[in-house]
Amino acid sequence: MAQPIRVTVWNEFRHEKENEKVRSVYPDGIHTAIGDGLGSDFQVAYATLDEPENGLAEEKLNNTDVLIWWGHKAHGDVQDATVERVHKRVMQGMGLIVLHSGHFSKIFKKLMGTSCDLKWREANEKERLWVVTPGHPIVEGIGEYIDLPAEEMYGEHFDIPAPDELIMVSWFEGGEVFRSACTFQRGSGKIFYFRPGHETYPTYYNEQIRTVIRNGVKWAAPTTRDYPKYGNHKPLEAIKAKASV
Amino acid sequence: MAQPIRVTVWNEFRHEKENEKVRSVYPDGIHTAIGDGLGSDFQVAYATLDEPENGLAEEKLNNTDVLIWWGHKAHGDVQDATVERVHKRVMQGMGLIVLHSGHFSKIFKKLMGTSCDLKWREANEKERLWVVTPGHPIVEGIGEYIDLPAEEMYGEHFDIPAPDELIMVSWFEGGEVFRSACTFQRGSGKIFYFRPGHETYPTYYNEQIRTVIRNGVKWAAPTTRDYPKYGNHKPLEAIKAKASV
Amino acid sequence: MAQPIRVTVWNEFRHEKENEKVRSVYPDGIHTAIGDGLGSDFQVAYATLDEPENGLAEEKLNNTDVLIWWGHKAHGDVQDATVERVHKRVMQGMGLIVLHSGHFSKIFKKLMGTSCDLKWREANEKERLWVVTPGHPIVEGIGEYIDLPAEEMYGEHFDIPAPDELIMVSWFEGGEVFRSACTFQRGSGKIFYFRPGHETYPTYYNEQIRTVIRNGVKWAAPTTRDYPKYGNHKPLEAIKAKASV
Amino acid sequence: MAQPIRVTVWNEFRHEKENEKVRSVYPDGIHTAIGDGLGSDFQVAYATLDEPENGLAEEKLNNTDVLIWWGHKAHGDVQDATVERVHKRVMQGMGLIVLHSGHFSKIFKKLMGTSCDLKWREANEKERLWVVTPGHPIVEGIGEYIDLPAEEMYGEHFDIPAPDELIMVSWFEGGEVFRSACTFQRGSGKIFYFRPGHETYPTYYNEQIRTVIRNGVKWAAPTTRDYPKYGNHKPLEAIKAKASV
Repeated sequence: MAQPIRVTVWNEFRHEKENEKVRSVYPDGIHTAIGDGLGSDFQVAYATLDEPENGLAEEKLNNTDVLIWWGHKAHGDVQDATVERVHKRVMQGMGLIVLHSGHFSKIFKKLMGTSCDLKWREANEKERLWVVTPGHPIVEGIGEYIDLPAEEMYGEHFDIPAPDELIMVSWFEGGEVFRSACTFQRGSGKIFYFRPGHETYPTYYNEQIRTVIRNGVKWAAPTTRDYPKYGNHKPLEAIKAKASV
Repeated sequence: MAQPIRVTVWNEFRHEKENEKVRSVYPDGIHTAIGDGLGSDFQVAYATLDEPENGLAEEKLNNTDVLIWWGHKAHGDVQDATVERVHKRVMQGMGLIVLHSGHFSKIFKKLMGTSCDLKWREANEKERLWVVTPGHPIVEGIGEYIDLPAEEMYGEHFDIPAPDELIMVSWFEGGEVFRSACTFQRGSGKIFYFRPGHETYPTYYNEQIRTVIRNGVKWAAPTTRDYPKYGNHKPLEAIKAKASV
Repeated sequence: MAQPIRVTVWNEFRHEKENEKVRSVYPDGIHTAIGDGLGSDFQVAYATLDEPENGLAEEKLNNTDVLIWWGHKAHGDVQDATVERVHKRVMQGMGLIVLHSGHFSKIFKKLMGTSCDLKWREANEKERLWVVTPGHPIVEGIGEYIDLPAEEMYGEHFDIPAPDELIMVSWFEGGEVFRSACTFQRGSGKIFYFRPGHETYPTYYNEQIRTVIRNGVKWAAPTTRDYPKYGNHKPLEAIKAKASV
Repeated sequence: MAQPIRVTVWNEFRHEKENEKVRSVYPDGIHTAIGDGLGSDFQVAYATLDEPENGLAEEKLNNTDVLIWWGHKAHGDVQDATVERVHKRVMQGMGLIVLHSGHFSKIFKKLMGTSCDLKWREANEKERLWVVTPGHPIVEGIGEYIDLPAEEMYGEHFDIPAPDELIMVSWFEGGEVFRSACTFQRGSGKIFYFRPGHETYPTYYNEQIRTVIRNGVKWAAPTTRDYPKYGNHKPLEAIKAKASV
């Protein structure tokens, strides 16, 4: 039998300690709500910003197949060495799911190469996420759209590279659209950005949102193969003589 | 336990009957060699050109998750009604794997919208297929490249739309390159074009080629969700009054 | 000095003859309004459905660099031979701009390979087209979005292949989004689909819409180079001996 | 009349000072050969590593529409502040053409987000660059392929994001392929990576290579429009009351 995918849910875990409203929604932290939503098919671990090495020491990362990232107000407190370790693992094949305000995390900006900036507004607006790539495994079991009764608005222009695959586009009540579910392959790793999940809304208890995240984990899991070799490379026999001149 | 993916291997099955050399390589038909290579994880069926309805009656297609297509000299003999049935099923989510000379099949040309033309040469040339998208599930278990000691050459320009994902690029001894493993999503269906497999070479017995085809079947399998609805669509409550004017 | 780009604006030209409301908006036909909007930088010609050969005889097409297509209620009346001639020219490099309800034209469906279906609603809704690819030449001179006070709604899922480039996404008042400005390269030709322009609204007099269409013409104009060669191809010297065996 | 595109050619300019062989090929520096090849349609300036601020002070960059980058042995000597200035300008719309060993420059790695690593070999091998996107303006005036009698080999896997557009693929005598002409849009800027140009070969005197670089400059030139606005954004009137709650 195949081994279960090993998922580590990383959370900044500051809002929940400092803000009564957020704590009332996520009393055990956003990471726990996300982890609970993953169900029992995966092997789930947690990591948070204020642990040593931001909870992501080398051994922890080496035993992670897919890393889920939620951060917002303390992106700058993530150590550069942590960012380097995560980046290296993504290049080697670890999956990465970046949620909501994680768009401004150091690791996402480093992987994208752009500012990752966007428009935003907190106005309790209705969000409707429309599926635009109906055959994609990330929307398995999802209908034509997902409705969220109230969320923070994110609007275009979202300053990311054109995603390899655009899977959902959000509509917001106040007049904006947003590329909300995007995939990117970088190195041997697969990255899934998924927009919803402002800390004051119970978004991560929504069954459809949980389904998308579960699907995302399966999609982002590493393949089993050798990491490519780089550097000086020998030619086919035919030109060896020539090369040795 | 999940139901096995239902694969139908379609073969033109004319070369094997008319050409001694081809028959010596594939005595039971190319389809049988491809089907044997799928192993026991799938539920495998076969269909050939000269059966009624080209072996692809509606019920057969409705019970197919992934259709594999090998054709070469008799593309014109495939009935237009068969092409329509297959096309409709791909739009609804059936996976399609098009092999080698299937690039010129009616169904592939209809799905691509281009001529699907290319350069070719029969000269027993070495082919090396290089992986360019190392994290993709279609190359799970494959090394940096696959070597085929002798194959027909296919060369660029290959007149297809830019693939959604380019997974392997072939090198040929005589000076050409070719986009050899390409994915396309069309409607709710996933399509995988894979170049190797001229009828005079034992390519479909090659273990790495078989691995790629098996991976392709898994990748192309349909997701479980409703087919999108099209046509006249009701608005959100907010503008219903306005819309009814 | 470079020769001006030769543009042919094709219009079904039936609504304007049969419907008072449409005629009041476009008294000389939609094609004339589109042509007027192109300004004086291009060499503009017209063609309509009820002319011989649908106004697109071989010579006319051979002297067209970019073809603009507006059709709606009579897609079925376009002759198959016309579709073949246009398709062949696109493969050879002619640009094609498909507007609004042209999504269901025979030529667009043939080029896309999918159903090209979508959701729609006539409810005088506000449309806001957001730019998602800010550096693209098609949005030269355009702000962050284009507002249209009233248009027909088109909604996802829009059944097209993932566009090569997604340039604008529309927001509609009633809750939908739509990929409204999409580019596709097919053969040696460049295709631009642009959503706005229902026949009962004065959309083609809007200065920003006109700017996008002008930009689209420049983007879609053919490059000057030989059409690729296909078929049997000679190898480099190195393997000629081998090939001749 | 339109103002000419302002191009700055940046060169590391160390090999030419230290290596007799390189100096014999490029006596006035690689940058001068590249600049000469641009012809008289552009306004050309130069910058080199050992000038103050690496020759790329803010004013110089603000007056550059397209920056061409050649570097190899001293990537580490480029100041981080220079990289930040160039990156900011690309986000705002400046074009960037990265040549050959520039794949390992700080600015290219920062923009790609990956290692940008590859295979290489110096063996005086024949390179044939095949056009795979025949309608693209970057290959205007180019035949089906470009032959270079001797070049350094670069081979896959090339660790970059999947390019927005893949325009040419190289074939090498010793058995490798390489994605040699790739475009990327990042922020409002357009980036073109073009493989050829090892310092010991006269590649930048080749007329076809020069044509591609000229085409690349035209393609990468900025569009005229406002840089997108980011941050807190006001909604449409309809929900203003709600938002102010």
